[in-house]
Amino acid sequence: MAYQHKIRVAWGDCDPANIVYTARIPWFALDAINGWWEEKFGGGWYQMEMDHGFGSPFVNMNLDFRAPITPRHRLICEVAPTRLGRTSIDWRVVGRQDGVTCFEGRFTCVFTDARSFTKAPPPDEVKALIEAHLEPSAE
Amino acid sequence: MAYQHKIRVAWGDCDPANIVYTARIPWFALDAINGWWEEKFGGGWYQMEMDHGFGSPFVNMNLDFRAPITPRHRLICEVAPTRLGRTSIDWRVVGRQDGVTCFEGRFTCVFTDARSFTKAPPPDEVKALIEAHLEPSAE
Amino acid sequence: MAYQHKIRVAWGDCDPANIVYTARIPWFALDAINGWWEEKFGGGWYQMEMDHGFGSPFVNMNLDFRAPITPRHRLICEVAPTRLGRTSIDWRVVGRQDGVTCFEGRFTCVFTDARSFTKAPPPDEVKALIEAHLEPSAE
Amino acid sequence: MAYQHKIRVAWGDCDPANIVYTARIPWFALDAINGWWEEKFGGGWYQMEMDHGFGSPFVNMNLDFRAPITPRHRLICEVAPTRLGRTSIDWRVVGRQDGVTCFEGRFTCVFTDARSFTKAPPPDEVKALIEAHLEPSAE
Repeated sequence: MAYQHKIRVAWGDCDPANIVYTARIPWFALDAINGWWEEKFGGGWYQMEMDHGFGSPFVNMNLDFRAPITPRHRLICEVAPTRLGRTSIDWRVVGRQDGVTCFEGRFTCVFTDARSFTKAPPPDEVKALIEAHLEPSAE
Repeated sequence: MAYQHKIRVAWGDCDPANIVYTARIPWFALDAINGWWEEKFGGGWYQMEMDHGFGSPFVNMNLDFRAPITPRHRLICEVAPTRLGRTSIDWRVVGRQDGVTCFEGRFTCVFTDARSFTKAPPPDEVKALIEAHLEPSAE
Repeated sequence: MAYQHKIRVAWGDCDPANIVYTARIPWFALDAINGWWEEKFGGGWYQMEMDHGFGSPFVNMNLDFRAPITPRHRLICEVAPTRLGRTSIDWRVVGRQDGVTCFEGRFTCVFTDARSFTKAPPPDEVKALIEAHLEPSAE
Repeated sequence: MAYQHKIRVAWGDCDPANIVYTARIPWFALDAINGWWEEKFGGGWYQMEMDHGFGSPFVNMNLDFRAPITPRHRLICEVAPTRLGRTSIDWRVVGRQDGVTCFEGRFTCVFTDARSFTKAPPPDEVKALIEAHLEPSAE
Protein backbone atom coordinates (compact mmCIF):
# COMPACT_ATOMS: atom_id res chain seq x y z
CA MET A 1 0.00 0.00 0.00
CA ALA A 2 1.21 3.50 -0.79
CA TYR A 3 2.68 5.71 1.92
CA GLN A 4 0.09 7.92 3.63
CA HIS A 5 1.36 11.31 4.83
CA LYS A 6 -0.89 13.03 7.36
CA ILE A 7 -1.07 16.84 7.39
CA ARG A 8 -2.72 18.90 10.11
CA VAL A 9 -4.35 21.74 8.20
CA ALA A 10 -4.55 24.95 10.21
CA TRP A 11 -6.23 28.35 10.25
CA GLY A 12 -3.09 29.99 8.88
CA ASP A 13 -3.17 27.75 5.79
CA CYS A 14 -6.56 29.19 4.82
CA ASP A 15 -7.42 32.32 2.88
CA PRO A 16 -10.45 34.61 3.11
CA ALA A 17 -12.50 32.08 1.12
CA ASN A 18 -12.21 29.92 4.29
CA ILE A 19 -10.34 27.16 2.45
CA VAL A 20 -6.66 26.35 2.07
CA TYR A 21 -4.90 28.87 -0.18
CA THR A 22 -4.00 27.28 -3.52
CA ALA A 23 -0.28 28.01 -3.21
CA ARG A 24 -0.14 26.02 0.07
CA ILE A 25 -1.20 22.85 -1.74
CA PRO A 26 1.99 22.19 -3.74
CA TRP A 27 3.83 22.90 -0.45
CA PHE A 28 1.77 20.16 1.23
CA ALA A 29 2.43 17.80 -1.69
CA LEU A 30 6.18 18.36 -1.44
CA ASP A 31 6.07 17.83 2.31
CA ALA A 32 4.37 14.52 1.54
CA ILE A 33 7.07 13.45 -0.93
CA ASN A 34 9.72 14.48 1.59
CA GLY A 35 7.80 12.37 4.13
CA TRP A 36 8.00 9.38 1.78
CA TRP A 37 11.80 9.70 1.77
CA GLU A 38 11.88 10.01 5.56
CA GLU A 39 9.75 6.90 5.94
CA LYS A 40 11.35 4.71 3.28
CA PHE A 41 14.92 5.99 2.98
CA GLY A 42 15.40 7.01 6.60
CA GLY A 43 15.83 10.71 5.84
CA GLY A 44 14.23 13.46 3.79
CA TRP A 45 15.84 15.83 1.27
CA TYR A 46 17.88 17.36 4.08
CA GLN A 47 19.66 14.11 4.95
CA MET A 48 19.80 13.18 1.26
CA GLU A 49 21.77 16.36 0.45
CA MET A 50 23.75 16.72 3.67
CA ASP A 51 24.65 13.11 4.47
CA HIS A 52 24.30 11.16 1.21
CA GLY A 53 25.57 13.61 -1.42
CA PHE A 54 22.65 13.49 -3.81
CA GLY A 55 19.56 15.59 -4.44
CA SER A 56 16.34 15.34 -6.41
CA PRO A 57 15.19 18.77 -7.60
CA PHE A 58 11.87 19.19 -9.38
CA VAL A 59 11.57 19.79 -13.11
CA ASN A 60 7.79 19.66 -13.38
CA MET A 61 4.70 19.75 -11.20
CA ASN A 62 1.15 19.30 -12.42
CA LEU A 63 -1.72 19.55 -9.98
CA ASP A 64 -5.46 19.20 -10.36
CA PHE A 65 -7.50 20.78 -7.61
CA ARG A 66 -10.67 18.73 -7.12
CA ALA A 67 -12.22 19.89 -3.85
CA PRO A 68 -11.50 22.55 -1.22
CA ILE A 69 -9.27 21.68 1.75
CA THR A 70 -10.18 22.93 5.23
CA PRO A 71 -8.92 22.44 8.81
CA ARG A 72 -11.95 20.24 9.59
CA HIS A 73 -10.14 17.01 8.74
CA ARG A 74 -6.57 15.80 8.51
CA LEU A 75 -5.28 15.90 4.93
CA ILE A 76 -4.07 12.44 3.99
CA CYS A 77 -1.57 12.53 1.15
CA GLU A 78 -0.91 9.24 -0.62
CA VAL A 79 2.54 9.21 -2.22
CA ALA A 80 4.13 6.75 -4.62
CA PRO A 81 6.89 6.76 -7.22
CA THR A 82 5.35 5.93 -10.60
CA ARG A 83 8.37 5.86 -12.94
CA LEU A 84 12.11 5.57 -12.49
CA GLY A 85 14.43 6.65 -15.27
CA ARG A 86 18.22 6.64 -15.26
CA THR A 87 18.40 10.13 -13.73
CA SER A 88 14.76 10.97 -13.14
CA ILE A 89 11.74 9.93 -11.13
CA ASP A 90 8.00 10.58 -11.30
CA TRP A 91 5.78 10.85 -8.26
CA ARG A 92 2.07 10.69 -7.72
CA VAL A 93 0.51 12.48 -4.74
CA VAL A 94 -3.21 12.33 -4.02
CA GLY A 95 -4.61 14.42 -1.16
CA ARG A 96 -7.81 13.35 0.52
CA GLN A 97 -9.91 14.67 3.37
CA ASP A 98 -12.61 12.52 4.94
CA GLY A 99 -12.49 10.22 1.90
CA VAL A 100 -12.88 13.04 -0.65
CA THR A 101 -10.11 13.57 -3.21
CA CYS A 102 -8.99 17.18 -2.85
CA PHE A 103 -6.05 17.23 -5.26
CA GLU A 104 -4.06 14.97 -7.52
CA GLY A 105 -0.50 15.81 -8.44
CA ARG A 106 2.17 14.41 -10.71
CA PHE A 107 5.76 15.45 -10.20
CA THR A 108 8.99 14.85 -12.07
CA CYS A 109 12.35 15.18 -10.36
CA VAL A 110 15.87 14.61 -11.58
CA PHE A 111 18.60 13.07 -9.49
CA THR A 112 21.66 15.23 -9.02
CA ASP A 113 25.04 15.10 -7.46
CA ALA A 114 24.54 17.43 -4.48
CA ARG A 115 27.94 19.09 -4.79
CA SER A 116 28.08 19.82 -8.51
CA PHE A 117 24.28 20.21 -8.90
CA THR A 118 24.52 18.18 -12.15
CA LYS A 119 22.35 15.25 -13.20
CA ALA A 120 23.57 11.88 -11.96
CA PRO A 121 21.97 8.47 -11.44
CA PRO A 122 20.95 7.89 -7.81
CA PRO A 123 23.00 5.50 -5.64
CA ASP A 124 22.22 1.83 -6.33
CA GLU A 125 20.44 1.26 -3.02
CA VAL A 126 18.17 4.23 -3.78
CA LYS A 127 17.42 2.78 -7.22
CA ALA A 128 16.53 -0.53 -5.56
CA LEU A 129 14.40 1.20 -2.93
CA ILE A 130 12.41 3.11 -5.54
CA GLU A 131 11.96 0.00 -7.68
CA ALA A 132 10.59 -1.88 -4.68
CA HIS A 133 7.90 0.77 -4.21
CA LEU A 134 7.18 1.59 -7.82
CA GLU A 135 3.50 1.71 -8.43
CA PRO A 136 2.37 -0.31 -11.43
CA SER A 137 0.89 2.22 -13.80
CA ALA A 138 -2.72 1.72 -14.79
CA GLU A 139 -1.97 3.11 -18.24
CA MET B 1 3.17 43.80 -24.02
CA ALA B 2 2.38 41.38 -21.21
CA TYR B 3 2.27 42.52 -17.59
CA GLN B 4 5.63 42.17 -15.79
CA HIS B 5 5.41 41.40 -12.07
CA LYS B 6 8.61 42.05 -10.14
CA ILE B 7 9.46 39.87 -7.13
CA ARG B 8 12.24 40.56 -4.65
CA VAL B 9 13.61 37.12 -3.87
CA ALA B 10 15.00 36.85 -0.34
CA TRP B 11 17.17 34.64 1.86
CA GLY B 12 14.09 33.15 3.49
CA ASP B 13 12.77 31.95 0.11
CA CYS B 14 15.85 29.75 -0.32
CA ASP B 15 16.57 26.26 0.94
CA PRO B 16 19.87 24.60 1.90
CA ALA B 17 20.69 24.11 -1.80
CA ASN B 18 21.06 27.93 -1.84
CA ILE B 19 18.25 28.37 -4.36
CA VAL B 20 14.56 29.16 -4.02
CA TYR B 21 12.63 26.22 -2.56
CA THR B 22 10.44 24.62 -5.23
CA ALA B 23 7.21 25.10 -3.28
CA ARG B 24 7.80 28.88 -3.17
CA ILE B 25 7.64 29.08 -6.97
CA PRO B 26 3.91 28.40 -7.47
CA TRP B 27 3.40 30.92 -4.65
CA PHE B 28 5.38 33.50 -6.65
CA ALA B 29 3.42 32.64 -9.80
CA LEU B 30 0.11 33.15 -8.01
CA ASP B 31 1.35 36.45 -6.57
CA ALA B 32 2.10 37.46 -10.16
CA ILE B 33 -1.40 36.55 -11.40
CA ASN B 34 -2.87 38.42 -8.44
CA GLY B 35 -0.64 41.34 -9.47
CA TRP B 36 -2.10 41.21 -12.98
CA TRP B 37 -5.58 41.68 -11.48
CA GLU B 38 -4.35 44.55 -9.30
CA GLU B 39 -2.79 46.27 -12.29
CA LYS B 40 -5.51 45.68 -14.88
CA PHE B 41 -8.71 45.33 -12.84
CA GLY B 42 -7.81 47.70 -10.03
CA GLY B 43 -7.82 45.04 -7.31
CA GLY B 44 -6.53 41.54 -6.68
CA TRP B 45 -8.43 38.45 -5.53
CA TYR B 46 -9.15 40.17 -2.22
CA GLN B 47 -11.08 43.03 -3.81
CA MET B 48 -12.57 40.64 -6.37
CA GLU B 49 -14.13 38.53 -3.60
CA MET B 50 -14.87 41.24 -1.04
CA ASP B 51 -16.06 44.10 -3.24
CA HIS B 52 -17.12 42.54 -6.54
CA GLY B 53 -18.72 39.26 -5.49
CA PHE B 54 -16.80 36.91 -7.73
CA GLY B 55 -13.78 34.68 -7.39
CA SER B 56 -11.47 32.69 -9.63
CA PRO B 57 -10.19 29.57 -7.86
CA PHE B 58 -7.62 27.32 -9.51
CA VAL B 59 -8.45 23.94 -10.99
CA ASN B 60 -5.03 23.15 -12.47
CA MET B 61 -1.44 24.32 -12.30
CA ASN B 62 1.39 22.97 -14.43
CA LEU B 63 4.89 24.29 -13.94
CA ASP B 64 8.19 23.54 -15.63
CA PHE B 65 11.25 24.49 -13.63
CA ARG B 66 14.00 25.50 -16.05
CA ALA B 67 16.70 27.21 -13.98
CA PRO B 68 17.34 27.89 -10.28
CA ILE B 69 16.09 31.15 -8.76
CA THR B 70 18.27 33.06 -6.30
CA PRO B 71 18.18 36.42 -4.49
CA ARG B 72 20.88 37.78 -6.84
CA HIS B 73 18.36 39.27 -9.26
CA ARG B 74 14.77 40.39 -9.18
CA LEU B 75 12.42 37.70 -10.49
CA ILE B 76 10.38 39.16 -13.35
CA CYS B 77 7.14 37.26 -13.90
CA GLU B 78 5.39 37.85 -17.20
CA VAL B 79 1.67 37.18 -16.91
CA ALA B 80 -1.02 36.93 -19.57
CA PRO B 81 -4.42 35.33 -19.98
CA THR B 82 -4.24 32.83 -22.85
CA ARG B 83 -7.82 31.53 -23.08
CA LEU B 84 -11.21 32.71 -21.89
CA GLY B 85 -14.08 30.26 -21.67
CA ARG B 86 -17.60 30.92 -20.44
CA THR B 87 -16.67 30.18 -16.82
CA SER B 88 -12.94 29.52 -17.03
CA ILE B 89 -9.66 31.21 -17.83
CA ASP B 90 -6.13 30.06 -18.63
CA TRP B 91 -3.02 31.96 -17.60
CA ARG B 92 0.58 31.82 -18.66
CA VAL B 93 3.29 32.92 -16.24
CA VAL B 94 6.96 32.95 -17.19
CA GLY B 95 9.54 33.79 -14.53
CA ARG B 96 12.90 35.20 -15.59
CA GLN B 97 16.01 36.37 -13.77
CA ASP B 98 18.64 38.39 -15.56
CA GLY B 99 17.16 37.30 -18.91
CA VAL B 100 17.18 33.58 -18.06
CA THR B 101 13.85 31.70 -18.02
CA CYS B 102 13.56 30.11 -14.59
CA PHE B 103 10.07 28.66 -14.82
CA GLU B 104 7.07 28.50 -17.12
CA GLY B 105 3.62 27.88 -15.75
CA ARG B 106 0.16 27.32 -17.13
CA PHE B 107 -2.84 27.76 -14.89
CA THR B 108 -6.56 27.17 -15.26
CA CYS B 109 -9.06 28.94 -13.05
CA VAL B 110 -12.84 28.89 -12.96
CA PHE B 111 -14.95 31.90 -12.26
CA THR B 112 -17.27 31.57 -9.29
CA ASP B 113 -19.93 33.48 -7.51
CA ALA B 114 -18.09 34.43 -4.30
CA ARG B 115 -21.04 33.79 -2.02
CA SER B 116 -22.26 30.44 -3.28
CA PHE B 117 -18.79 29.23 -4.41
CA THR B 118 -20.42 27.86 -7.57
CA LYS B 119 -19.27 28.33 -11.16
CA ALA B 120 -20.60 31.47 -12.83
CA PRO B 121 -19.53 33.57 -15.82
CA PRO B 122 -17.50 36.64 -14.80
CA PRO B 123 -19.12 40.11 -14.94
CA ASP B 124 -19.25 41.53 -18.49
CA GLU B 125 -16.61 44.19 -17.83
CA VAL B 126 -14.25 41.48 -16.60
CA LYS B 127 -14.91 39.44 -19.72
CA ALA B 128 -14.12 42.52 -21.83
CA LEU B 129 -10.98 43.25 -19.82
CA ILE B 130 -9.65 39.72 -20.25
CA GLU B 131 -10.46 39.71 -23.95
CA ALA B 132 -8.54 42.97 -24.41
CA HIS B 133 -5.42 41.35 -22.93
CA LEU B 134 -5.80 37.85 -24.32
CA GLU B 135 -2.53 36.66 -25.77
CA PRO B 136 -2.79 35.22 -29.26
CA SER B 137 -1.80 31.58 -28.90
CA ALA B 138 1.16 30.43 -30.96
CA GLU B 139 -0.40 26.99 -31.31
CA MET C 1 1.55 18.11 32.07
CA ALA C 2 1.51 20.73 29.35
CA TYR C 3 0.32 19.89 25.84
CA GLN C 4 3.12 18.72 23.51
CA HIS C 5 2.71 19.65 19.84
CA LYS C 6 4.90 17.67 17.47
CA ILE C 7 6.18 19.34 14.28
CA ARG C 8 7.88 17.52 11.44
CA VAL C 9 10.55 19.97 10.31
CA ALA C 10 11.35 19.70 6.59
CA TRP C 11 13.92 20.74 4.00
CA GLY C 12 11.65 23.55 2.82
CA ASP C 13 11.59 25.08 6.31
CA CYS C 14 15.38 25.58 6.18
CA ASP C 15 17.41 28.40 4.68
CA PRO C 16 20.90 28.38 3.14
CA ALA C 17 22.43 28.30 6.64
CA ASN C 18 21.00 24.73 6.78
CA ILE C 19 18.73 25.55 9.72
CA VAL C 20 15.10 26.57 9.99
CA TYR C 21 14.54 30.12 8.74
CA THR C 22 13.79 32.45 11.66
CA ALA C 23 10.44 33.59 10.27
CA ARG C 24 9.19 29.98 10.21
CA ILE C 25 9.57 29.74 13.98
CA PRO C 26 6.70 32.03 15.04
CA TRP C 27 4.63 30.13 12.43
CA PHE C 28 5.49 26.86 14.21
CA ALA C 29 4.68 28.42 17.59
CA LEU C 30 1.26 29.57 16.35
CA ASP C 31 0.59 26.13 14.87
CA ALA C 32 1.35 24.76 18.33
CA ILE C 33 -1.09 27.13 20.08
CA ASN C 34 -3.71 26.28 17.46
CA GLY C 35 -2.94 22.61 18.23
CA TRP C 36 -3.62 23.25 21.93
CA TRP C 37 -7.09 24.52 21.03
CA GLU C 38 -7.71 21.51 18.78
CA GLU C 39 -6.67 19.13 21.55
CA LYS C 40 -8.36 20.81 24.50
CA PHE C 41 -11.31 22.69 22.99
CA GLY C 42 -12.06 20.27 20.15
CA GLY C 43 -11.28 22.74 17.39
CA GLY C 44 -8.63 25.28 16.41
CA TRP C 45 -9.03 28.94 15.47
CA TYR C 46 -10.97 27.87 12.39
CA GLN C 47 -13.72 26.17 14.35
CA MET C 48 -13.54 28.88 17.03
CA GLU C 49 -14.33 31.58 14.47
CA MET C 50 -16.62 29.62 12.15
CA ASP C 51 -18.65 27.58 14.62
CA HIS C 52 -18.34 29.30 17.98
CA GLY C 53 -18.37 32.99 17.07
CA PHE C 54 -15.26 34.10 18.91
CA GLY C 55 -11.65 34.68 17.99
CA SER C 56 -8.36 35.29 19.77
CA PRO C 57 -6.07 37.53 17.70
CA PHE C 58 -2.54 38.26 18.84
CA VAL C 59 -1.46 41.57 20.30
CA ASN C 60 2.12 40.65 21.18
CA MET C 61 4.67 37.95 20.51
CA ASN C 62 8.11 37.75 22.10
CA LEU C 63 10.48 34.97 21.12
CA ASP C 64 13.98 34.05 22.23
CA PHE C 65 15.88 31.87 19.83
CA ARG C 66 18.20 29.60 21.82
CA ALA C 67 19.43 26.92 19.40
CA PRO C 68 19.11 26.16 15.69
CA ILE C 69 16.24 23.92 14.51
CA THR C 70 16.89 21.31 11.81
CA PRO C 71 14.97 18.44 10.16
CA ARG C 72 17.05 15.90 12.12
CA HIS C 73 14.54 15.65 14.95
CA ARG C 74 10.88 16.33 15.49
CA LEU C 75 10.29 19.74 17.05
CA ILE C 76 8.29 19.29 20.24
CA CYS C 77 6.43 22.44 21.22
CA GLU C 78 5.14 22.60 24.78
CA VAL C 79 2.16 24.94 25.05
CA ALA C 80 0.36 26.29 28.09
CA PRO C 81 -1.80 29.28 28.97
CA THR C 82 -0.05 31.29 31.68
CA ARG C 83 -2.52 34.08 32.44
CA LEU C 84 -6.21 34.66 31.83
CA GLY C 85 -7.61 38.17 31.96
CA ARG C 86 -11.19 39.27 31.34
CA THR C 87 -10.60 39.64 27.59
CA SER C 88 -7.01 38.47 27.19
CA ILE C 89 -4.81 35.44 27.53
CA ASP C 90 -1.08 34.78 27.70
CA TRP C 91 0.59 31.70 26.28
CA ARG C 92 3.96 30.11 26.75
CA VAL C 93 5.43 27.98 23.97
CA VAL C 94 8.78 26.23 24.33
CA GLY C 95 10.22 24.37 21.33
CA ARG C 96 12.66 21.55 21.90
CA GLN C 97 14.55 19.14 19.66
CA ASP C 98 16.20 16.06 21.12
CA GLY C 99 15.94 17.58 24.60
CA VAL C 100 17.55 20.90 23.63
CA THR C 101 15.51 24.10 24.03
CA CYS C 102 15.45 25.79 20.62
CA PHE C 103 13.10 28.68 21.33
CA GLU C 104 10.94 30.12 24.07
CA GLY C 105 7.98 32.32 23.25
CA ARG C 106 5.46 34.36 25.14
CA PHE C 107 2.27 35.45 23.41
CA THR C 108 -0.63 37.67 24.34
CA CYS C 109 -3.99 37.37 22.61
CA VAL C 110 -7.26 39.16 23.13
CA PHE C 111 -10.62 37.49 22.89
CA THR C 112 -12.95 38.98 20.32
CA ASP C 113 -16.44 38.59 19.04
CA ALA C 114 -15.77 37.04 15.63
CA ARG C 115 -18.42 39.05 13.81
CA SER C 116 -17.72 42.53 15.11
CA PHE C 117 -13.97 41.94 15.64
CA THR C 118 -14.26 43.79 18.97
CA LYS C 119 -12.91 42.69 22.35
CA ALA C 120 -15.26 40.47 24.31
CA PRO C 121 -14.83 37.99 27.19
CA PRO C 122 -14.65 34.39 25.98
CA PRO C 123 -17.62 32.05 26.51
CA ASP C 124 -17.85 30.72 30.09
CA GLU C 125 -16.90 27.17 29.14
CA VAL C 126 -13.77 28.51 27.43
CA LYS C 127 -12.91 30.50 30.54
CA ALA C 128 -13.31 27.34 32.61
CA LEU C 129 -11.22 25.31 30.15
CA ILE C 130 -8.37 27.79 30.24
CA GLU C 131 -8.48 28.02 34.02
CA ALA C 132 -8.24 24.24 34.28
CA HIS C 133 -5.01 24.29 32.28
CA LEU C 134 -3.50 27.50 33.57
CA GLU C 135 0.13 26.99 34.42
CA PRO C 136 1.14 28.26 37.83
CA SER C 137 3.65 31.01 37.18
CA ALA C 138 7.07 30.58 38.71
CA GLU C 139 7.36 34.32 39.21
CA MET D 1 15.25 59.31 7.19
CA ALA D 2 14.84 55.62 7.92
CA TYR D 3 14.66 53.07 5.09
CA GLN D 4 11.10 52.38 3.89
CA HIS D 5 10.45 48.84 2.64
CA LYS D 6 7.30 48.46 0.57
CA ILE D 7 5.37 45.17 0.72
CA ARG D 8 2.55 44.22 -1.62
CA VAL D 9 0.11 42.39 0.63
CA ALA D 10 -1.86 39.72 -1.21
CA TRP D 11 -4.92 37.48 -0.84
CA GLY D 12 -2.72 34.52 0.07
CA ASP D 13 -1.26 36.43 3.04
CA CYS D 14 -4.73 36.68 4.60
CA ASP D 15 -6.62 34.23 6.76
CA PRO D 16 -10.37 33.61 7.11
CA ALA D 17 -10.68 36.73 9.29
CA ASN D 18 -9.91 38.64 6.05
CA ILE D 19 -6.71 40.12 7.46
CA VAL D 20 -3.07 39.14 7.22
CA TYR D 21 -2.34 36.00 9.26
CA THR D 22 -0.30 36.87 12.36
CA ALA D 23 2.56 34.51 11.49
CA ARG D 24 3.09 36.32 8.16
CA ILE D 25 3.91 39.55 9.99
CA PRO D 26 7.32 38.59 11.43
CA TRP D 27 8.08 37.23 7.92
CA PHE D 28 7.29 40.67 6.48
CA ALA D 29 9.41 42.34 9.16
CA LEU D 30 12.38 40.11 8.36
CA ASP D 31 11.94 40.77 4.63
CA ALA D 32 12.12 44.47 5.53
CA ILE D 33 15.35 44.08 7.52
CA ASN D 34 16.80 42.03 4.65
CA GLY D 35 15.70 44.88 2.36
CA TRP D 36 17.64 47.35 4.52
CA TRP D 37 20.80 45.31 3.95
CA GLU D 38 20.12 45.14 0.21
CA GLU D 39 19.65 48.89 0.05
CA LYS D 40 22.46 50.01 2.33
CA PHE D 41 25.04 47.21 2.11
CA GLY D 42 24.41 46.19 -1.49
CA GLY D 43 23.20 42.70 -0.66
CA GLY D 44 20.86 40.92 1.74
CA TRP D 45 21.56 37.99 4.06
CA TYR D 46 22.20 35.80 1.02
CA GLN D 47 25.09 37.88 -0.25
CA MET D 48 26.25 38.51 3.32
CA GLU D 49 26.62 34.76 3.95
CA MET D 50 27.67 33.65 0.46
CA ASP D 51 30.00 36.45 -0.60
CA HIS D 52 31.10 38.20 2.60
CA GLY D 53 31.50 35.35 5.08
CA PHE D 54 29.38 36.71 7.90
CA GLY D 55 25.82 36.27 9.08
CA SER D 56 23.42 37.90 11.53
CA PRO D 57 21.02 35.36 13.02
CA PHE D 58 18.23 36.46 15.33
CA VAL D 59 18.27 35.91 19.07
CA ASN D 60 15.07 37.76 19.93
CA MET D 61 11.99 39.21 18.25
CA ASN D 62 9.29 41.19 20.01
CA LEU D 63 6.29 42.40 18.07
CA ASP D 64 3.25 44.44 19.02
CA PHE D 65 0.30 44.08 16.68
CA ARG D 66 -1.60 47.37 16.62
CA ALA D 67 -4.00 47.19 13.67
CA PRO D 68 -5.02 44.60 11.07
CA ILE D 69 -3.13 44.47 7.76
CA THR D 70 -5.05 43.93 4.52
CA PRO D 71 -4.29 43.91 0.77
CA ARG D 72 -6.04 47.30 0.40
CA HIS D 73 -2.83 49.29 0.82
CA ARG D 74 0.87 48.69 0.44
CA LEU D 75 2.51 47.87 3.77
CA ILE D 76 5.33 50.34 4.36
CA CYS D 77 7.92 48.99 6.79
CA GLU D 78 10.30 51.51 8.29
CA VAL D 79 13.56 49.88 9.33
CA ALA D 80 16.45 51.23 11.35
CA PRO D 81 19.27 49.84 13.49
CA THR D 82 18.86 51.16 17.02
CA ARG D 83 21.89 49.74 18.85
CA LEU D 84 25.23 48.28 17.81
CA GLY D 85 27.18 46.14 20.24
CA ARG D 86 30.49 44.41 19.64
CA THR D 87 28.81 41.29 18.23
CA SER D 88 25.14 42.25 18.25
CA ILE D 89 22.68 44.65 16.71
CA ASP D 90 19.14 45.80 17.49
CA TRP D 91 16.59 46.71 14.85
CA ARG D 92 13.32 48.58 14.90
CA VAL D 93 10.69 47.83 12.27
CA VAL D 94 7.39 49.71 12.13
CA GLY D 95 4.77 48.62 9.61
CA ARG D 96 2.19 51.13 8.42
CA GLN D 97 -0.71 51.05 5.98
CA ASP D 98 -2.30 54.25 4.79
CA GLY D 99 -0.68 56.13 7.67
CA VAL D 100 -1.91 53.71 10.35
CA THR D 101 0.68 51.85 12.47
CA CYS D 102 -0.08 48.14 12.08
CA PHE D 103 2.83 46.65 13.99
CA GLU D 104 5.98 47.63 15.81
CA GLY D 105 8.84 45.20 16.20
CA ARG D 106 12.15 45.11 17.97
CA PHE D 107 14.74 42.56 16.95
CA THR D 108 18.14 41.52 18.26
CA CYS D 109 20.64 39.74 16.05
CA VAL D 110 24.17 38.57 16.68
CA PHE D 111 26.93 38.75 14.13
CA THR D 112 28.53 35.44 13.27
CA ASP D 113 31.31 34.05 11.18
CA ALA D 114 29.32 32.33 8.41
CA ARG D 115 31.55 29.26 8.26
CA SER D 116 31.92 28.43 11.94
CA PHE D 117 28.49 29.83 12.94
CA THR D 118 30.15 31.37 16.02
CA LYS D 119 29.80 34.94 17.29
CA ALA D 120 32.23 37.40 15.74
CA PRO D 121 32.31 41.19 15.33
CA PRO D 122 31.13 42.33 11.89
CA PRO D 123 33.69 43.57 9.33
CA ASP D 124 34.80 47.15 9.98
CA GLU D 125 33.00 48.59 6.98
CA VAL D 126 29.76 46.99 8.21
CA LYS D 127 30.32 48.49 11.64
CA ALA D 128 30.83 51.91 10.03
CA LEU D 129 27.74 51.46 7.83
CA ILE D 130 25.52 50.59 10.81
CA GLU D 131 26.91 53.46 12.85
CA ALA D 132 26.12 55.88 10.04
CA HIS D 133 22.45 54.81 10.11
CA LEU D 134 22.04 54.25 13.82
CA GLU D 135 18.85 55.86 15.02
CA PRO D 136 19.25 58.05 18.08
CA SER D 137 17.19 56.38 20.76
CA ALA D 138 14.38 58.44 22.25
CA GLU D 139 14.93 56.75 25.60
